[in-house]
Amino acid sequence: MDQSHRAHDPQRRAGTPTLTLAEPESPREALVSRVRRSIVSEVRRGRLRPGQVLPGSRPLAALFGVHRNTVLTALRELESEGWVTTSPARGTFVSEELPEQKRRRALPGGPTTSGERPGYDVPEGGFSAPRPVRALSFFGGIPDVRLVDTSLVARALKRALRDLSTLRYGSPLGDLRLRRELSKLLSDTRAVPRTEDEILVTSGSQMAIDLVARALLPRGSCVAVEALGYRPAWDALRRAGIELCPVPIDGDGMDVRALERLSQKRALAGVLLTPHHQCPTTVTLSASRRLGLLELARKSRWLVLEDDYDHEFHYEGRPILPLASADPGGNVVYVGTLSKVLSPALRVGYVAAPRSVIARLADYRVSTDREGNHVVERAVAELLEDGEAGRHVRRARKVYLARRDVLVSLLAKTLGDRLTFDVPRGGTSIHATVDPDVDVEAIVLRAYDLGLSLQSPKVFAFDGKTRPFLRLGFAQLDETELPRAVRCLASAFPKSDEGKRA
Amino acid sequence: MDQSHRAHDPQRRAGTPTLTLAEPESPREALVSRVRRSIVSEVRRGRLRPGQVLPGSRPLAALFGVHRNTVLTALRELESEGWVTTSPARGTFVSEELPEQKRRRALPGGPTTSGERPGYDVPEGGFSAPRPVRALSFFGGIPDVRLVDTSLVARALKRALRDLSTLRYGSPLGDLRLRRELSKLLSDTRAVPRTEDEILVTSGSQMAIDLVARALLPRGSCVAVEALGYRPAWDALRRAGIELCPVPIDGDGMDVRALERLSQKRALAGVLLTPHHQCPTTVTLSASRRLGLLELARKSRWLVLEDDYDHEFHYEGRPILPLASADPGGNVVYVGTLSKVLSPALRVGYVAAPRSVIARLADYRVSTDREGNHVVERAVAELLEDGEAGRHVRRARKVYLARRDVLVSLLAKTLGDRLTFDVPRGGTSIHATVDPDVDVEAIVLRAYDLGLSLQSPKVFAFDGKTRPFLRLGFAQLDETELPRAVRCLASAFPKSDEGKRA
Repeated sequence: MDQSHRAHDPQRRAGTPTLTLAEPESPREALVSRVRRSIVSEVRRGRLRPGQVLPGSRPLAALFGVHRNTVLTALRELESEGWVTTSPARGTFVSEELPEQKRRRALPGGPTTSGERPGYDVPEGGFSAPRPVRALSFFGGIPDVRLVDTSLVARALKRALRDLSTLRYGSPLGDLRLRRELSKLLSDTRAVPRTEDEILVTSGSQMAIDLVARALLPRGSCVAVEALGYRPAWDALRRAGIELCPVPIDGDGMDVRALERLSQKRALAGVLLTPHHQCPTTVTLSASRRLGLLELARKSRWLVLEDDYDHEFHYEGRPILPLASADPGGNVVYVGTLSKVLSPALRVGYVAAPRSVIARLADYRVSTDREGNHVVERAVAELLEDGEAGRHVRRARKVYLARRDVLVSLLAKTLGDRLTFDVPRGGTSIHATVDPDVDVEAIVLRAYDLGLSLQSPKVFAFDGKTRPFLRLGFAQLDETELPRAVRCLASAFPKSDEGKRA
Repeated sequence: MDQSHRAHDPQRRAGTPTLTLAEPESPREALVSRVRRSIVSEVRRGRLRPGQVLPGSRPLAALFGVHRNTVLTALRELESEGWVTTSPARGTFVSEELPEQKRRRALPGGPTTSGERPGYDVPEGGFSAPRPVRALSFFGGIPDVRLVDTSLVARALKRALRDLSTLRYGSPLGDLRLRRELSKLLSDTRAVPRTEDEILVTSGSQMAIDLVARALLPRGSCVAVEALGYRPAWDALRRAGIELCPVPIDGDGMDVRALERLSQKRALAGVLLTPHHQCPTTVTLSASRRLGLLELARKSRWLVLEDDYDHEFHYEGRPILPLASADPGGNVVYVGTLSKVLSPALRVGYVAAPRSVIARLADYRVSTDREGNHVVERAVAELLEDGEAGRHVRRARKVYLARRDVLVSLLAKTLGDRLTFDVPRGGTSIHATVDPDVDVEAIVLRAYDLGLSLQSPKVFAFDGKTRPFLRLGFAQLDETELPRAVRCLASAFPKSDEGKRA
């Protein structure tokens, strides 16, 4: 072989037929990563063999058409990962000690391990991704994140990062400044007096409910829930070994007389409910039932788990205070969230309860996920401190109120003879009753095909059976989307009597 | 009363003796908030009564010494909270319908509800804040967040927020781009071939272990653990109703022969271990034990929970691949984390396992906290995509290696006759054995008083009894702090024989 030629042809020097720059895997992939992948790929294919010398950084740079520093950085990465070894005198070599597994790489879909089948027993059931939500969706409880000024959030996160302590391990109770702000918020807007040590920040209200279920309620005990209610909360309780007993709901919320009768037949450890804007009916628990419930709880030493998931969005009448604000027996564990306030993605919820209860919950939090994201918690604290979060809520409340009214008049005009509803005084959805003869599930399916996502009433029913209602969330739909959504909904209703069930 | 005078004196017009601007509660408190609090405080004290008219916005602005717009904003907030009502013709009044609870406010430490004593039974035990960590700390497994370029993190968060979908509810599996990056990372650096659907992003490795315990391991089953190990993982397993059986550790990691003997006496459902840098000893599970363990697991259908919590920090020798990279029986559930890589506060860990296993874990994640923080997950994906995370790891690895060597030589010089240790080939701490006659717990206490935090060996011991070793984490101490820490440690050792136990 012609040595002089070889020296000028790095491909041949390395014996590498195709050392070309790999195509980017994503638009943002850095050149260093592409150079690195190009070499790894040749090793994996066996075209660069263990012990083989690589071309120098200059010829490699020329081959790849990149700056030499890019090649040097890629080689340093490869060395630290064990793909290559470098000797100052002799150059860079494919590592001799490369484990066999490293060279073989799973082809897409075909891992080298036994992969698909676990070698242990996996219990039945698992998450399966739901059908994608349509561009138009009447799902309830969804805030419009388009209203969020993301630059404010970004700035708050940047400020939070300036304090390096937010990057360190911290308290499982949550960022202290956030707990102080939540304490103020609870005291000022809800008459719930809890100090910073009586608040636990959680990853959304779901974690609050999960922790209460596992840390406070005995396995095997029985808890009363709303017969129409929020299924993910039920799942958390059931997984903590708790039996659930449904209590009927009417226009005044949970039927407390029925609860009392239930309690005479079954020993209850607690009650889970949404007294402010009942999920999914949006009705408010009446004053007399509140008193009755708290009195029953006091006498029976129940834990009352109050899920106040969208306190902020009340449009009319005097402010309705939580059960926790008048709780003579100390029975209420109060759960709130900022998911509907700023964004669900920030995952900031909280529990307010006596100190001993918070300590017990925090202990379970440590073994669940150690603690929350303190950078995000601090940023949210900043947004509460400087009033930005409050301003956003007031803006959003005004927008949602206007959207509620638009939806009310659209429904009256288009579906006035098919739907019956009260205008909700709060919350982010209209609870509309349909004629019991109409097949609601068929409407849900037809609407999906027409481009509109609706929630099946089954998901709210304790017995899992359908009911003649639709929950129509209006917060996330603007004034141009609402009319389109209502048109879709109207088209999904059966013409004349065709869709009526026998 | 002189009407003309009254009109000129807003204090008297409102009958308010002391309407002055409240002192700021924090340096960052906005003026609007202070104005708002000033009025709320007067209402709560009963000095502004329900139905009473407030001074106009101009006189209020003059009283508080603020701009009129500030007053108007504060009044709008108060109105939306129900504190005041506004009539365009008549002015602003303290709300007539103010609930009694709202007026009374808890004095600090004295809430209006029964507060401190819950009206339900709270099980024993709860989180109590540990003593504050000293400025100098030898705690293990703590990355130095001072090395993190927070402006890069802030920028990545800002970019993530530009995609509004990160602010919406998303997949419980985690951000898709992050799962793709983790899939690449596992394949490229650890020969663990898992696709994006075989990875679940969790809130740190703790949540990964908690979900595996609850979703995959039967209540009442028995799991083998390292007799010296990581207590928070044990807590998660125990709370899932699992019984733990300790297996001894030596210089080659878990004693697999002892494990086999144990399995002949007890039916095991699984094994939890840290094979890469055993916690707390930092030793690596030997090749023959790896093979033996995987063979045992295959035959017995065990779930092998591999906690590879600091894979990135290995300094010498060829790369050590996880058990999951050569897992013929499909027994290994692999858990990793970015807590040591970027920052623990980002709370990004992950599980890699077959698809059916991931689906089962995701289902439990939904009822635990619904999903992770997708803004943060996307930002971390960006940092992985553009190579910043990798560059940070390589920088940190170099720094930690240098710190390890500094600590090794300081210990040899200062405490060479009191401590015995092998130089760790990886991890972020030195496992140093002390003379069994020395009272280690007394050293821990004395060091604390001298300004140095040490971990008691008890926290790592399955039986909770002390052991003659110290885990000395070096990653978080720089070249000026290490000598000071070692001096403290030396001073905490008993002089001559005084501290030896009888």
